Amino acid sequence: MDDLLAQLRAGLPAEALITDPDVTVSYANDMASFCEAGTPSVVVLPRTVEHVQHVMRTATALRVPVVPQGARTGLSGAANASDGCIVLSLTKMDRILEINPVDRIAVVEPGVINAALSRAVGEQGLYYPPDPSSWEMCTIGGNIGTASGGLCCVKYGVTAEYVLGLDVVLADGRLLTTGRRTAKGVAGYDLTRLFVGSEGSLGIVVKAVLALRPQPPQQLVLAAEFASAAAACDAVCRIMERGHTPSLLELMDRTTIRAVNAMANMGLPDTTEALLLAAFDTPDPAADLAAVGELCTAAGATEVVPAEDAAESELLLQARRLSLTALETIKSATMIDDVCVPRSRLAEMLDGTAAIAGKYDLTIGVCAHAGDGNTHPVVCFDQADPDESRRARESFDEIMALGLELGGTITGEHGVGTLKKEWLSRELGPVGLELQRGIKRTFDPLGLLNPGKLF
Amino acid sequence: MDDLLAQLRAGLPAEALITDPDVTVSYANDMASFCEAGTPSVVVLPRTVEHVQHVMRTATALRVPVVPQGARTGLSGAANASDGCIVLSLTKMDRILEINPVDRIAVVEPGVINAALSRAVGEQGLYYPPDPSSWEMCTIGGNIGTASGGLCCVKYGVTAEYVLGLDVVLADGRLLTTGRRTAKGVAGYDLTRLFVGSEGSLGIVVKAVLALRPQPPQQLVLAAEFASAAAACDAVCRIMERGHTPSLLELMDRTTIRAVNAMANMGLPDTTEALLLAAFDTPDPAADLAAVGELCTAAGATEVVPAEDAAESELLLQARRLSLTALETIKSATMIDDVCVPRSRLAEMLDGTAAIAGKYDLTIGVCAHAGDGNTHPVVCFDQADPDESRRARESFDEIMALGLELGGTITGEHGVGTLKKEWLSRELGPVGLELQRGIKRTFDPLGLLNPGKLF
Repeated sequence: MDDLLAQLRAGLPAEALITDPDVTVSYANDMASFCEAGTPSVVVLPRTVEHVQHVMRTATALRVPVVPQGARTGLSGAANASDGCIVLSLTKMDRILEINPVDRIAVVEPGVINAALSRAVGEQGLYYPPDPSSWEMCTIGGNIGTASGGLCCVKYGVTAEYVLGLDVVLADGRLLTTGRRTAKGVAGYDLTRLFVGSEGSLGIVVKAVLALRPQPPQQLVLAAEFASAAAACDAVCRIMERGHTPSLLELMDRTTIRAVNAMANMGLPDTTEALLLAAFDTPDPAADLAAVGELCTAAGATEVVPAEDAAESELLLQARRLSLTALETIKSATMIDDVCVPRSRLAEMLDGTAAIAGKYDLTIGVCAHAGDGNTHPVVCFDQADPDESRRARESFDEIMALGLELGGTITGEHGVGTLKKEWLSRELGPVGLELQRGIKRTFDPLGLLNPGKLF
Repeated sequence: MDDLLAQLRAGLPAEALITDPDVTVSYANDMASFCEAGTPSVVVLPRTVEHVQHVMRTATALRVPVVPQGARTGLSGAANASDGCIVLSLTKMDRILEINPVDRIAVVEPGVINAALSRAVGEQGLYYPPDPSSWEMCTIGGNIGTASGGLCCVKYGVTAEYVLGLDVVLADGRLLTTGRRTAKGVAGYDLTRLFVGSEGSLGIVVKAVLALRPQPPQQLVLAAEFASAAAACDAVCRIMERGHTPSLLELMDRTTIRAVNAMANMGLPDTTEALLLAAFDTPDPAADLAAVGELCTAAGATEVVPAEDAAESELLLQARRLSLTALETIKSATMIDDVCVPRSRLAEMLDGTAAIAGKYDLTIGVCAHAGDGNTHPVVCFDQADPDESRRARESFDEIMALGLELGGTITGEHGVGTLKKEWLSRELGPVGLELQRGIKRTFDPLGLLNPGKLF
């Protein structure tokens, strides 16, 4: 330990090191429940690529595990410390290095906050779509580590689709550049994409070239109420089948609506079973909303309310963005699931989740990126009650099993971390898992990078 | 050899094997010039996954290399036979297994022709964007192997962005399923993307889940003439900087225009230095064309001609699609380069290419996916003239060097194959190359899959 600190100090400024255990312990966790976390030896806050290289060379020399972290807003324990590790917090490497409107790219350090980038590119008429709910806090590096999604994905896709190239410090401290600044490129295997979603287990991202889009028009939102989740899902299928391209298509169930009303007094229709929010950022959003409103009515919507302006739209989005936080107030703890199914199976997923809630006698609120088939069942429970905690964990697993049964995945956008690592092998199967482990060994033969995550 | 045939026959129907050397030799090459090709031992045309597994098990048991092939329309020698290899032609596995308009996916076998898929999904109001020039012949499996692009990419991206999941037969015959049928998913490393563009060197794709989009409105095309390539490139930059999203943005130089006129008598303006084609498939394409026409004029266009209808638009696109074929008529042989640079550097790339043509006293016609910065300089030469052939090869290399110097890549969409493998290490650098080789070893420890390609 003294050796580790001495060697780290040799290549880092004093202010880059935190050794006070009262402080380092605050870096032990991300935002996932039920995920074990160890005690870090030291927290390092590098400001340069050379700092990161020094940390990795030291870690390799002394065989010390390294856990990279962004803002620790993750929901799967992927950023949790392991015992004796170096926590490598990239939050101080937070410069936007370049915004280029002709090439439509931004070059950033990993600690840049998602919202800061969105605003900076917005000032130049550009748009960086990925918008996880934590966008005001989370970092681009963390978004890359988990391949984050958000509300935008139904039209604009996930983080992975916006990462063109990376600078990565490898486990042994060498610097790797992947990808490109160009719109296209097929020179060799796509290492860039391999790092996206790798949860810090293959290398430390120290720079990213990101693709941007032109800023779309302000979106307009429609809210539609349904007497059942299945009817709302039917509307989702009709909307997508008819070739509409909403900029978001979100679902909140009754539990979620009530929780949001209770927390923020938003006046959502809390006697309804499911609320669907659809938005368009097209040249004529009102026309698109009218067409989608008709499809909702045909699917059995009891009420269809298009927002009249940006302010009304923003209010509805606020309600959706508050959903997770609001559901967290129901009990002392929550487990947030992240099962994504083909959208044609969404109704089965929601009805099945309701059945699981009944079976385990639990409150499970669901909000969903419905257009993507990506559900977030939030299992609410009392951590002080061992039996309820056990039932929560079991229901959480049963929800994943249902997702796989419906042709889905255990994680649409939150990642595997420690929370779902037993489930990863179930989804990938033995052949896939063997190859994934082989890739891990190729990049990190000593197994120092974020050990115990993913696999 | 007898052993090989006997073992192959044990698990394959007779009609799946071609052993006649007069026939097998016709499977030796793709469409690249200057790429060595060996003599295959046998050509296998499997019809089922089990056939492919049998071939790979046999190849592994006997240590025989396997070269997978689609329609052999590739331009980098990636599908060229190596001596004594099994050529595995996937062209008979050509079924479209599913088209699902709600989930917006298609599930296909690798031998499906790109155009056949496009038409089939079009009948259901859906759109599969990737459109390489060879789209009437090339297969989806080949498109996946090379991560093909096309005219659509400036708006819709490349093949990689449409591959959600794969079934892959590994070198040892095991079957791997990667990815998903869902819109999103982050369970483990992105193996799907690793296979896309891997040129058959990691496994044999036997099934693909592809993402589809709603069919956009018919596009309308504008043609703009410029007195210099630089002025046309300036127009490209202005169009992209102003936030337009053309569905194609193509450039033809004077050599290309004249070649097309000579071949097809199309009446293109062949005294002009550069012709820019811009198209929009938006709700109001005429308005977009008007705005873009003004930007072209501001950049110095000498003439701006918007197509009045779909027929006129189609004619202009035909001219562009004929470009490579037309340039091939200038001399006995051509080498087609595929350098992609940031679009802000496109003018330098084109001027530099013209200078290289002058230096080597060669005709080099350029057509380009200008919106992507992806140029196709076509070096025309007489194969019977050793000195001209040498100069052709040297100019080809110098064009790649220029591309790298401008922050670009040696290949935007055609791939590495054998044509550019010396150049791959130059682009990737030693660290990147070492990791790429490590991945290759993980998937294909015996080095049987398409040996001698890429690296």
